[in-house]
Amino acid sequence: MDFEKFYKNKNILITGGLGFLGSNLAIRLSELGAKVTILDCLLKIHGGNLFNIQPVRKEINFVRGDIRNAALVNKLIKGQDFLFNIAAQTSHTDSMEQPFLDGDINSKGQLNLLEACRRLNPSIRAVYCSSRAIYGSSPKKLIDEGTAPNPLDVYSVHKLAGEHYHKIYNKVHGIKTLILRVANGYGPRAQMKAPSFGILNWFIRLALDNMEIKIFGDGKQMRDYVYVVDIVQSFLQAGASEHFNGDIYNVGSGRGVSLVNIVREIVTTAGRGKIVYVSWPDTNKKIDVGDFVADVSKIKSEIGWQPEISLREGLEKTIEFYRLNKKRYW
Amino acid sequence: MDFEKFYKNKNILITGGLGFLGSNLAIRLSELGAKVTILDCLLKIHGGNLFNIQPVRKEINFVRGDIRNAALVNKLIKGQDFLFNIAAQTSHTDSMEQPFLDGDINSKGQLNLLEACRRLNPSIRAVYCSSRAIYGSSPKKLIDEGTAPNPLDVYSVHKLAGEHYHKIYNKVHGIKTLILRVANGYGPRAQMKAPSFGILNWFIRLALDNMEIKIFGDGKQMRDYVYVVDIVQSFLQAGASEHFNGDIYNVGSGRGVSLVNIVREIVTTAGRGKIVYVSWPDTNKKIDVGDFVADVSKIKSEIGWQPEISLREGLEKTIEFYRLNKKRYW
Repeated sequence: MDFEKFYKNKNILITGGLGFLGSNLAIRLSELGAKVTILDCLLKIHGGNLFNIQPVRKEINFVRGDIRNAALVNKLIKGQDFLFNIAAQTSHTDSMEQPFLDGDINSKGQLNLLEACRRLNPSIRAVYCSSRAIYGSSPKKLIDEGTAPNPLDVYSVHKLAGEHYHKIYNKVHGIKTLILRVANGYGPRAQMKAPSFGILNWFIRLALDNMEIKIFGDGKQMRDYVYVVDIVQSFLQAGASEHFNGDIYNVGSGRGVSLVNIVREIVTTAGRGKIVYVSWPDTNKKIDVGDFVADVSKIKSEIGWQPEISLREGLEKTIEFYRLNKKRYW
Repeated sequence: MDFEKFYKNKNILITGGLGFLGSNLAIRLSELGAKVTILDCLLKIHGGNLFNIQPVRKEINFVRGDIRNAALVNKLIKGQDFLFNIAAQTSHTDSMEQPFLDGDINSKGQLNLLEACRRLNPSIRAVYCSSRAIYGSSPKKLIDEGTAPNPLDVYSVHKLAGEHYHKIYNKVHGIKTLILRVANGYGPRAQMKAPSFGILNWFIRLALDNMEIKIFGDGKQMRDYVYVVDIVQSFLQAGASEHFNGDIYNVGSGRGVSLVNIVREIVTTAGRGKIVYVSWPDTNKKIDVGDFVADVSKIKSEIGWQPEISLREGLEKTIEFYRLNKKRYW
């Protein structure tokens, strides 16, 4: 796929485009010659960070604002060829303490965007960034897209509602939508201020600071960590596909790694940090989903995407990035 | 089960208590000696109707207000032993045209109630009225509670979110919740002003007015119609059970009847009305769920409820009620 040919001069709106995934995608699309508009409200303690798009700052139209603002969303949606719909409240624990805020952003905000598409730009193509969290816990070893959702926190309920909206606006209103359910992402440009926004990045911070890394329980819970450059690639490839039928695709490495092994890998690669084992805090235990490994065969066979970057390589690049840019993220 | 002994002097809040199911439940609970408070906002064209509770009007505390009003909800939740949580925007077609209104009532309104329980009355028992609509269309002949939800309209997305909230507030916050997924209800005290609020009741109105009853397509789609007195019984029985674990139970007749057969039955019982066949309107076709018959074996085995009233008997009683009270409902 010649992405440069496909995305050059395309008008693209990225919500949450100053955040972890959004900014990596924005940089790549801008480099491919797309006309990128970012809508990001820079919510406190969330991932939005102007430094994230520094390499392409001059080429990108950044609008500080909110997907909760219907009038602004209406204005921005007009004339766009693509919507990469990534803005979200992303903290599971915050969603339990502030369920209304989570609902306003992750549920109502999505309706704002889809109503804008329906009324003002019905030929747009919308890629919705969902989360593996909607699966909750499952006894299955490898989770495919047919697995029944089992949301275990308010965040996951609203992300699931967002998925359903995208499916329904496709089936009923004909809006071209596609849903990517992303596993645990890691890599450069993530929020590094709190563990709730991506545990692996948080561990990297602790390691670089030569701090103790606390593992809850025995650390044997399996997770699927996927490097952000691979995720960006999945968004580009999905966006360039013809699969805008409200369908859902897992995005992950397809491989399970135990928490304890990933922490060992981080400590080794960083050459710093120390592992300690602690018992589960009550609140975390109640909403923890246990093992999760994504079955990524559907996106491979239908869209042709697969992860390319090994965990070792991804960790090396991530640690290198934060070593260089510590003061921008700590 | 001696319901009188169980519910006598219990403090019970019924949201949507002037509507179809809510008012039938309120009357029954009031007759059993419970202290019933109704919260109902009497939304235009919805089912709320003060005449619905006329038989027990003096015994019931009616508060005109809205589950969207958090301050009011907080005030009313205090001191209640039970919450029968029935208030909803119930029109599928309206939910597609006014998705924000539907979200405010059916999603955010539920969070208002559960947050009030969590903060002000954590020992309350809450029975949430959900809908068979969350199953959407399914190739299965008999739908049990393990069937993966497949919401096909915005209403169903938000009812499903309401279910998830009730489950999560049980698992994480320990609130005693229980979810009943109700099939197509019919019977006295339903809204009779528009077809979108219960198709069977609407057909009864047309028959009593000796009008044409339009069937979309061949009318062979199967539905599960359950008489409101049976539904009320399921709420009483579930409320008196020990199954407040955020679990889900189907409530239905467990038998499928085709639309065309039910209309014939209505015309015969009413002795009036005329069947005509028309092709599917576009919007209805897109959100129609096809066949639906509830598997009600779980509630029977765990809670001991089963439907007792035959379709023939239910239709006779319903037609008799509206014949007598036409001017209150037309």
